[in-house]
Amino acid sequence: MVSPAGRSRIRHNDALVAELSAVLGERVTTNQAVRERHGKDESFHAPHPPDVVAFAESTDEVRDIVLICGRHGAPVIPYGTGTSLEGHVAALEGGVCIDLSGMDRILRVGAEDMDVTVQAGVTRKRLNEHLRDTGLFFPIDPGADASIGGMTATRASGTNAVRYGTMRENVLGLTVVMADGRVVHTGGRARKSSAGYDLTRLMVGSEGTLGVITEITLRLYGIPEAISSAVCAFPTLLDATNTVIATIQAGVPVARMELLDALQMEACNRFSKLDYPVAPTIFFEFHGSPRGVEEQAETVKAIAGDFGGDDFRWSTSPEERNRLWQARHDAFYAALAMRPGAQGWPTDVCVPISRLAECIAETQEDLKSAPFPVPIVGHAGDGNFHLVYVIDPDSQSEVEAANAINERLVTRALAMGGTCTGEHGVGYGKAKFLTAEHGEAVSVMRAIKQALDPMNLMNPGKILPP
Amino acid sequence: MVSPAGRSRIRHNDALVAELSAVLGERVTTNQAVRERHGKDESFHAPHPPDVVAFAESTDEVRDIVLICGRHGAPVIPYGTGTSLEGHVAALEGGVCIDLSGMDRILRVGAEDMDVTVQAGVTRKRLNEHLRDTGLFFPIDPGADASIGGMTATRASGTNAVRYGTMRENVLGLTVVMADGRVVHTGGRARKSSAGYDLTRLMVGSEGTLGVITEITLRLYGIPEAISSAVCAFPTLLDATNTVIATIQAGVPVARMELLDALQMEACNRFSKLDYPVAPTIFFEFHGSPRGVEEQAETVKAIAGDFGGDDFRWSTSPEERNRLWQARHDAFYAALAMRPGAQGWPTDVCVPISRLAECIAETQEDLKSAPFPVPIVGHAGDGNFHLVYVIDPDSQSEVEAANAINERLVTRALAMGGTCTGEHGVGYGKAKFLTAEHGEAVSVMRAIKQALDPMNLMNPGKILPP
Repeated sequence: MVSPAGRSRIRHNDALVAELSAVLGERVTTNQAVRERHGKDESFHAPHPPDVVAFAESTDEVRDIVLICGRHGAPVIPYGTGTSLEGHVAALEGGVCIDLSGMDRILRVGAEDMDVTVQAGVTRKRLNEHLRDTGLFFPIDPGADASIGGMTATRASGTNAVRYGTMRENVLGLTVVMADGRVVHTGGRARKSSAGYDLTRLMVGSEGTLGVITEITLRLYGIPEAISSAVCAFPTLLDATNTVIATIQAGVPVARMELLDALQMEACNRFSKLDYPVAPTIFFEFHGSPRGVEEQAETVKAIAGDFGGDDFRWSTSPEERNRLWQARHDAFYAALAMRPGAQGWPTDVCVPISRLAECIAETQEDLKSAPFPVPIVGHAGDGNFHLVYVIDPDSQSEVEAANAINERLVTRALAMGGTCTGEHGVGYGKAKFLTAEHGEAVSVMRAIKQALDPMNLMNPGKILPP
Repeated sequence: MVSPAGRSRIRHNDALVAELSAVLGERVTTNQAVRERHGKDESFHAPHPPDVVAFAESTDEVRDIVLICGRHGAPVIPYGTGTSLEGHVAALEGGVCIDLSGMDRILRVGAEDMDVTVQAGVTRKRLNEHLRDTGLFFPIDPGADASIGGMTATRASGTNAVRYGTMRENVLGLTVVMADGRVVHTGGRARKSSAGYDLTRLMVGSEGTLGVITEITLRLYGIPEAISSAVCAFPTLLDATNTVIATIQAGVPVARMELLDALQMEACNRFSKLDYPVAPTIFFEFHGSPRGVEEQAETVKAIAGDFGGDDFRWSTSPEERNRLWQARHDAFYAALAMRPGAQGWPTDVCVPISRLAECIAETQEDLKSAPFPVPIVGHAGDGNFHLVYVIDPDSQSEVEAANAINERLVTRALAMGGTCTGEHGVGYGKAKFLTAEHGEAVSVMRAIKQALDPMNLMNPGKILPP
């Protein structure tokens, strides 16, 4: 396990628990199993249970919890579904985990304005179920059925970002409880505004380190008239990557364009009972009018053909499409199933699209010496790709090898003008790379953190390197 | 004139000028005419000349100027083309204006990644001329041939924002000189990142109050294969507005959708020698593949027909199109020409699209008693519209009436969930509305300003209310 330099600022404090209980009643616990569950996410990084878990059901309750924590000097860690990937929910310095899953109300659907306001604990799948009859949907899809609060806090994106953007582009406004208990409303419902500092974008991706996000207004989209998916295998990963690059450069508004290497395809075939060729593959999805989808598909087919991708298998029925994308979403579990008893360490980087082929090729070369399987999966249309180190958690040498590969991966991406994480976030797993990526700008981030959270109580140890 | 509560912190300081001259040589001046020109923008708000104008040609020079100003306690006001609309460049407390127009180099065109890095003084027209042979263009078009630095600092948008977004969506990264002389690089060239606080978006729209933007990396787009424009008149402004709303709600990816009321059409006809009906009118533009443009145009024509807009006049030749959009861009000058000797006070608000018809109707009603012409022009697809108060600057009663209309306009927009400015920015003209719009969030903005500019030297008096 990768261990943080954690220190607990608070262990058991009866006064703190009593004050929280006065507000929340039974919805406060120090039960060990509950604490352990709340200090752990889906990453490989060491979990750290909080001292207390508080289940909030309203912004006012979150404000009360934050005020109580402030008086006791206890850290505050927001928790949605625990599906983060860089140790975001680990209570590195102890403190109070605020579980927001009870804040699960959809507060307002603005069908005419194509927007919605939800509480932070609403998950993306529940939101889309709720929207079904409106003809609208929320496209951001990081795979896991994450909470909208968590997706906002980590600036999530996923398979649909090529066409619809990330949380950065799709959050219109927020309600946030700041470290001193101030409740602020950022942004608004107008599609654009030049009125003041963009606090919405500052909070999106701040991973709970600047405040607790309790309500989110999101942009919605009309469910496309026509949707069509296709799977296409390529002779080499380079051919597949070049198809992605050429498609983006041709300006085709493809909705999804997911790259899977041969190893990942083998894992997916086995796990999801599919029979695709074991070869570098792209999963495509096209959204639009019937004519538009046809036009996009024709263009992309021609491009793929230039790179040896001749075997387009179409999925036009919703059932087939769902099966395809479920398999894509299960890629992580499929990877794990390749090596029983192993644990997965997922990571991601993102580079300018012009460097994607080079970055993937060099990474592939580097992986040849890896002493464990490392499938590659990518939201390649954004220049974003993922590795999963499928390792034996008890083997120190494997953990060290994964660490070394990860360092080289990030160094490579940064050297190509990329970022250490396209969508997973920093948590505490990638904080050490922040200065290499942003240089002096980290000192500006630190000044903002200091101004808004002078006691460093909001999810301490995340994003900013120690 | 609307007068700010300005006070000069520095008048003549030979040591300051000498230090600046040591860095910039002849490119420092206290010449009155130059100072006056640099304290004035295209707004109605009272100009305030800076004490010194310094012409910078590099980020290093800007850093040196900022450091010298810091030592002398002199305010720093960045200046691009002086086309701002809320008094952004007025040196309310004196100080040094940094004219960035000499920073006019296009540093890098990334045709493969569809991005470009420019110095802050490059204007949007020059950028697009430079790009012409690449097949790419930068779509954000606020009308004036503003500098990219100024457009970034004010979070500009304009006619193309319906399809391409605003500066918020299209700035990928920045070089910024902070108040203490630190030079920071924000963002990057990857299309998405979850690595740390979004300083890029914090700086976009900060109007020089947090630092001086010296370099900008922008997203570019392929020049559409097909472009088609049309003009359509409607029986009433409500019909025209409803056409806009229905088009947006139908999800048609129209590139431009500009609303002009009958008064503005009359002014444009006269000023630009056109012969359109004097009626509420929409200027449309469609971008895409030939089939896509055709499809969009058909859909919109059907929608317009539902609201009495039957007379579509098409402009498909580039010459005709340019004439049309030049007339749109000259709308402000056309308005001024209606009343010789008058001065224009342009303003804008933005509301959720569902409230646009109501907001425009109530505004129109309010304007009936205005003692001067007030044409309405709107980037209506975003819910954004503009008024120009065409007033006699020497008439105190007209100025007061304009002020009162403006207050009611903003109050109305805010009550509908909108913003006090969709794209012009706050400057010092709209600072008084910031608290009504953002409430407690203004205190968070203030904390950030205090953290990053503790001496309040960066464009003081702008954005944040006193």
